[in-house]
Amino acid sequence: MSSLLIHNIGMLATPEGTEAHRGPAQGQLRVLENAWIYTENGRIVSFGSGEPPLTAEEKLDAGGRLVTPGLVDAHTHLIFGGWRQNELAMKIRNVPYLDILASGGGILSTVKATHAATEAELTNKAATALDEMMRFGTTTCEAKSGYGLCKDEELKQLRVIRKLNETHPMDVAATFMGAHALPPEYKENREGYLKLLCEEIIPAVAQEKLARFCDVFCETGVFTAEESRQVLECGKEYGLIPKIHADEIDPIGGSQLAGQIGAISAEHLIVCPDEGIASMARGGTIACLLPATSFYLNSTYAPARKMIEQGVPVALASDYNPGSCPCLNLQLVMNIACLKYRLTPEEVLTGVTLNAAAAIGMAELVGSVDRAKQADLVIWDAPDLNYLCYRLGSNLAHTVIKKGVLYHG
Amino acid sequence: MSSLLIHNIGMLATPEGTEAHRGPAQGQLRVLENAWIYTENGRIVSFGSGEPPLTAEEKLDAGGRLVTPGLVDAHTHLIFGGWRQNELAMKIRNVPYLDILASGGGILSTVKATHAATEAELTNKAATALDEMMRFGTTTCEAKSGYGLCKDEELKQLRVIRKLNETHPMDVAATFMGAHALPPEYKENREGYLKLLCEEIIPAVAQEKLARFCDVFCETGVFTAEESRQVLECGKEYGLIPKIHADEIDPIGGSQLAGQIGAISAEHLIVCPDEGIASMARGGTIACLLPATSFYLNSTYAPARKMIEQGVPVALASDYNPGSCPCLNLQLVMNIACLKYRLTPEEVLTGVTLNAAAAIGMAELVGSVDRAKQADLVIWDAPDLNYLCYRLGSNLAHTVIKKGVLYHG
Repeated sequence: MSSLLIHNIGMLATPEGTEAHRGPAQGQLRVLENAWIYTENGRIVSFGSGEPPLTAEEKLDAGGRLVTPGLVDAHTHLIFGGWRQNELAMKIRNVPYLDILASGGGILSTVKATHAATEAELTNKAATALDEMMRFGTTTCEAKSGYGLCKDEELKQLRVIRKLNETHPMDVAATFMGAHALPPEYKENREGYLKLLCEEIIPAVAQEKLARFCDVFCETGVFTAEESRQVLECGKEYGLIPKIHADEIDPIGGSQLAGQIGAISAEHLIVCPDEGIASMARGGTIACLLPATSFYLNSTYAPARKMIEQGVPVALASDYNPGSCPCLNLQLVMNIACLKYRLTPEEVLTGVTLNAAAAIGMAELVGSVDRAKQADLVIWDAPDLNYLCYRLGSNLAHTVIKKGVLYHG
Repeated sequence: MSSLLIHNIGMLATPEGTEAHRGPAQGQLRVLENAWIYTENGRIVSFGSGEPPLTAEEKLDAGGRLVTPGLVDAHTHLIFGGWRQNELAMKIRNVPYLDILASGGGILSTVKATHAATEAELTNKAATALDEMMRFGTTTCEAKSGYGLCKDEELKQLRVIRKLNETHPMDVAATFMGAHALPPEYKENREGYLKLLCEEIIPAVAQEKLARFCDVFCETGVFTAEESRQVLECGKEYGLIPKIHADEIDPIGGSQLAGQIGAISAEHLIVCPDEGIASMARGGTIACLLPATSFYLNSTYAPARKMIEQGVPVALASDYNPGSCPCLNLQLVMNIACLKYRLTPEEVLTGVTLNAAAAIGMAELVGSVDRAKQADLVIWDAPDLNYLCYRLGSNLAHTVIKKGVLYHG
């Protein structure tokens, strides 16, 4: 048995429980001052304020700092080859995305680079990113496939995620997203690709137990709402829980579908219509919002406040990917959510911990400081939660603890 | 004699020369591939591409990475007591600034906290910030007084800057900004405070040689253009070079004044009118733009592209301060300048190196890789300049070199 006592915590701030917080609960935290947390074998056993009533093999003085649950990044495209830095200069010069695509850029260049990389290369590259995510305070994340777009390559990406779970301290929830784009070879045969997804790739993913979720990019020029439904229904038959990229550019029915189909989460939702919010509220779908992507794309911001008011739980994630958001820093995501969504620090903390955990089906295990949950914690160079959201551009993670063990990345 | 050879530089990117780059020159860099830099006693002696023709006491392998001049942060309010994290939650709830002021917040709370801090406390706090700035790649910065607003306290702030120059590796250019706000005790006696500034404080600053620049906040509700002129003219008589906070909220003539009075730089310029740009172009004034402040205040962005097109050199700085921009990370400033001003990575690099150096009168010494300049350099975890501006939220500074010495902060 290994035990750890973190004491002299200036402020312990956490949501409570194992279910996503919706409505007014999104901002309700348990806040303890002068607190302590006792963990055994990587799990939280007890916590409280005042003098700790017990001791442990290892004692860690938090120095009066803020402690929160480890952050959960519920939406990343972690596994990819190459980068796309040359597109930035084109974007600045207002080169249209279609011209970037035509010049060999865009998502298909990432597909090409991902195909060209070996499983070991992709694993090493992703592990480097996971290291950096942990240094910024993320202790659990999601990762999607979707730069394969054919059976072998999609499975390769998902095997990388499995390998990372075996070798890296980060918990990584796997999402199959073969429906991320239409492969060029199927340009004139959309049905053919949907058939491939439903009859070959999804069954193979399920058989190897390579993913827990199935995601689809429901967007003008990508997959229609009806095609998205087809893919997600098929995924459900094979036990994959639905997620959906919806309303990022055009509101073509993705958020409505999310609620109807019982998606665990809908992603982006930048232009989510009222009917979409209502459908998600009815269906129990979590809104997984990606504020750094809006910032990076110079687009508008998702109606986060309205979602919270209408009872849709809001999770906040990075969208880390080489095209629209080459950012894996959830602290920056928290800043943008405060400044642009006008969420309070309390609502934001819920969004990057418990609601994010719920969006990847892990709220029983992570996302709050609660008895029996994993001892995933961050000690912040901050006296309180407001300070964590107020400072911009610094890495305030002082000590990151994963399953009761200090991370030294 | 100590010498250093940095070799295996994948890309060396730098502006050239000792004068601010204006117009098309702002984007023109010297770019060398497979490069090396040789330094002696903290100065650059030679550099080139291909096999280095000489060796040195110390050799540093850049590993094929990007190298640029050390970044220069030409606008900070580095010296302050306290923080103002509680105002974030008020801002999010749309509490008006005047109500924040009335509840004891706003700039006057920082004035109070700065008064309450000892010179040693302020020095330690600022040194911690300078350490962090260096870890992000800044090797030279400016710092303003302006949270004193009376003779003793303004001098105290400036003595902290002098102390930092004696004790910290960062070069810190000192700016006197007693005209940062009207002290409450002069609310009904504006002339009295201007008299105090011109007849007592500025002469004292000059006598102790505590500052090189004099800055004033020309803004509705702070100082008028005429009052600003009075302060800056007085500063000039005492040898202080004029700077001016202009057009941040209202265009009340600050940028026009900047050009007329020959200010070395004008700051903010968010709502700078065409006549202001023309005046600055005529007067040789550098536009010192603060994109992270626009981001943090949810305001619009300065017309940076127009300024460059009309021959005004653009420098980019952090505005680090506890109210409107608690950010000291110039890499994030570079991102925002690319994404929101739509400056190219080449224009942005000029803005955070040579033009920033020129904005604080230090372009003879820093701001470019040139013979006889200080060996202030950054090796970046980036293969090229595009990548440095494209990645968001990571600290890409791999090795920071100040006067030929590796910084280990």
